[in-house]
Amino acid sequence: MALLFVSAHDHAEDWVNELKAQLPELDVRVWPEGMGDPAEIDYALVWKPPAGLLASLPKLKVIFSLGAGVDALLADPTLPDLPLVRMVEPGLTEGMTEYVCLHVLRWHRDAPLFEAQQRDVVWKQLTHQHLARERRVGILGLGALGSDAAQVLKALRFDVAGWSRSPKQLDGIATYHGAEGLAPFLARTDILVCLLPLTPDTENILDAGLFAQLPRGAVVINAARGRHLVEEDLLAALNSGHLAGATLDVFRTEPLPADHPFWTHPRVTVTPHVAAITQARTAVEQVVGGLKRLAAGQPLINLVDRRRGY
Amino acid sequence: MALLFVSAHDHAEDWVNELKAQLPELDVRVWPEGMGDPAEIDYALVWKPPAGLLASLPKLKVIFSLGAGVDALLADPTLPDLPLVRMVEPGLTEGMTEYVCLHVLRWHRDAPLFEAQQRDVVWKQLTHQHLARERRVGILGLGALGSDAAQVLKALRFDVAGWSRSPKQLDGIATYHGAEGLAPFLARTDILVCLLPLTPDTENILDAGLFAQLPRGAVVINAARGRHLVEEDLLAALNSGHLAGATLDVFRTEPLPADHPFWTHPRVTVTPHVAAITQARTAVEQVVGGLKRLAAGQPLINLVDRRRGY
Repeated sequence: MALLFVSAHDHAEDWVNELKAQLPELDVRVWPEGMGDPAEIDYALVWKPPAGLLASLPKLKVIFSLGAGVDALLADPTLPDLPLVRMVEPGLTEGMTEYVCLHVLRWHRDAPLFEAQQRDVVWKQLTHQHLARERRVGILGLGALGSDAAQVLKALRFDVAGWSRSPKQLDGIATYHGAEGLAPFLARTDILVCLLPLTPDTENILDAGLFAQLPRGAVVINAARGRHLVEEDLLAALNSGHLAGATLDVFRTEPLPADHPFWTHPRVTVTPHVAAITQARTAVEQVVGGLKRLAAGQPLINLVDRRRGY
Repeated sequence: MALLFVSAHDHAEDWVNELKAQLPELDVRVWPEGMGDPAEIDYALVWKPPAGLLASLPKLKVIFSLGAGVDALLADPTLPDLPLVRMVEPGLTEGMTEYVCLHVLRWHRDAPLFEAQQRDVVWKQLTHQHLARERRVGILGLGALGSDAAQVLKALRFDVAGWSRSPKQLDGIATYHGAEGLAPFLARTDILVCLLPLTPDTENILDAGLFAQLPRGAVVINAARGRHLVEEDLLAALNSGHLAGATLDVFRTEPLPADHPFWTHPRVTVTPHVAAITQARTAVEQVVGGLKRLAAGQPLINLVDRRRGY
């Protein structure tokens, strides 16, 4: 039983060590040098594999994605029609929730203002400080990432709501769904957090029309995919004063080009796609769990629905 | 029944309106112009009253502090020997917990590094990101503020412990107490948060000896009182590389003087004493609750023990 590891973005050694520790009988191959005979590969664990690579593995049975988002995989027209498992693992979920809570708190508590004041050596307090319970946070996307973030934001006492394509129920959190649910959700959202999967339906969802439905002074946090956001519409909404700020971890072009206006915009916080990193130990537990389910004849979980796109 | 409101730091009108809304029969006087006959004042609600003012009110029965810390009041040798109620109110507690969570997350997630990278237009990821469950946060002080912060940090999945003068029990949180408990508590703390009351025992507690007991690379957050911290010891521990960073909301001299090295230190975050603001509505509920307890012959709660200092 051989598994091919494919990622130019991760330390293969960490993953190989974890796979061998958790499933010693697994024959782990590392692309490109360590692949060996393509006909011997049964499984692939991949992040952004080169187009055509997976199609060249004649005995491949299952593809495991290293990341939560499978939009890059699905964009490869040569992707074989095999079961595709997306990554749902606690390390990734927890890291994303931390990032979201940090950046929601940061805008909620005017941290960018106080950072600027420190640079300018200015001691100035605000006359009023809203409490988290008075701040309405809205989460776009209520999958594994969105529902965890919503629940921890609730523990921080924010007034949290969520929106998803299909109906979802979450304890203590107002939920909205579908096209008709989007307008009332946006109208009650002071801090909007995008955690949607990237699909043809959600591409460019963060645009001028959506921003106009947020209350004046709202903040947008995008930790999903760069292609959710129409960048020029965000700049226009910030510059008109309608939006008060934005935190962006993902961009249409990464690395973000050095001359991009986001870098220097006084009300944009840029992070270099670091919101959540798949953690080798907990992610390998998921992959090994999948391999054991297959061996036991049980159905795989977290399978991608290709029509839905996630 | 007359209550004198004394604060040069708050908008008296907000407080008067809240007091009148919640207890219409109360005769509210605002110092200095609205005080009237000092012999008519039964109660005082105060923040940093001028020395001698409270001693000049012959019929004063109870002093209510507007803030959680009563160190400034107790430092006035003319303070009358009357029941002194410190402020424990949900708005203050919640605001402090938000501040603590923001700044713990900020160091945990290397936000100062990414802020500097944005200023320098640098796109650079970290090779490894610790999860909150791997980060040991230690709270000094487990009163109303410390225990709430500890519990919400736990909901954020941090590995939280607390230290207090006398033994305390908190669900899911390791607690240490007394002089003998301090060393093991510090040895397991990556991010230290000071929420102690300022007393002769806790003044200067954040000094070189304490920093040396923290693991190398630890971070210190002081949101209590400036006099908890020996400022030159903090600078030395930062400059030697033993401490990785600090967030300070309070200082020995406020406003922080413009030439103070904290303002420009690359690993010090300065905020202008804004961690938590007493909220008029919820604070007045506490004061009115106290007045009603007195009228009903019930004992006051949150009374300061003057020997203990809080």
